[in-house]
Amino acid sequence: VRADARRNYDQILAAAEAEIARSGADASLEKIARDAGVGSATLHRHFPSRQSLLEAVFHDRVEGLCARARELSTAADPGRALADWLREVAVYGATTRGLAESILYAAPAASDCEAMLLDAGGELLRRAQSAEAVRPDVAILDLLTMANAVSLATRSADDATRLLTLAIEGISGPPAGRR
Amino acid sequence: VRADARRNYDQILAAAEAEIARSGADASLEKIARDAGVGSATLHRHFPSRQSLLEAVFHDRVEGLCARARELSTAADPGRALADWLREVAVYGATTRGLAESILYAAPAASDCEAMLLDAGGELLRRAQSAEAVRPDVAILDLLTMANAVSLATRSADDATRLLTLAIEGISGPPAGRR
Repeated sequence: VRADARRNYDQILAAAEAEIARSGADASLEKIARDAGVGSATLHRHFPSRQSLLEAVFHDRVEGLCARARELSTAADPGRALADWLREVAVYGATTRGLAESILYAAPAASDCEAMLLDAGGELLRRAQSAEAVRPDVAILDLLTMANAVSLATRSADDATRLLTLAIEGISGPPAGRR
Repeated sequence: VRADARRNYDQILAAAEAEIARSGADASLEKIARDAGVGSATLHRHFPSRQSLLEAVFHDRVEGLCARARELSTAADPGRALADWLREVAVYGATTRGLAESILYAAPAASDCEAMLLDAGGELLRRAQSAEAVRPDVAILDLLTMANAVSLATRSADDATRLLTLAIEGISGPPAGRR
């Protein structure tokens, strides 16, 4: 029974992530239950309120971004690893519209998530700065605020990627290659 | 009488701009009337609704930004002129909090203002690109979206200035001088 419950929980979460990415924070709970292959009662048992489901999705996505940062922390090009990760953070915010506002400035629940992102990103930044790929006067909070800013002002993954790349590369001089 | 009415209008607008910069879009209309040295009836005659006052302030500030762009369009350093103007746009958004959301994505009334900013900024961008101070693949809509993004994610003029400067300069290499 416990394994069944865990599988239901994971399936609901996966369906919720996909549906929220499509429809934002007011996604249909009925559709999420249907996509997950469970009844509304089961969804309700795991997530008594819409808010509890949103928080679980948010937390899960932030854990995903942190796992990605750990993966990238052994990449051969630390400057590019940092840039790739920041693009993923911006795209995440832009494509989970209803959650974008909460990614950095939200209820107490989000401050844990903020700390996780600052830690994970801070490590990538330190490596990039050691390799002299990034200016020494840049702080991880600036970079996450920038990713959040881009999320708030864009509505698609393509726009978010393009705009964050511009912010990372700067606008001066000839076109830079992707970093 | 007409000159009096015009003076009252200008004084109300100036008081409203100052008060909205301090308190946001729900600034006290009574305080605005008092600061302007007019009665509530006079304020109401010129601006029948809060919305009409907000739109007038918004339009006036956008005209100010456009006038500033024309001024900067004869500056000796076109790259710096563009960067200075974008910083002013970002600071404007960050410090007129309630209006920030409307600066680019608002009701029909704002689309005129958007066109004005695109025109004024486009001219500065063309000069900066002719002088090879800015990459040829950058569009003015990208730059205004960036300024808007920074406005949405920051709450003070200092933060907005710092973050937009970072986006303009990019994060790679050694610290660049102010442009």
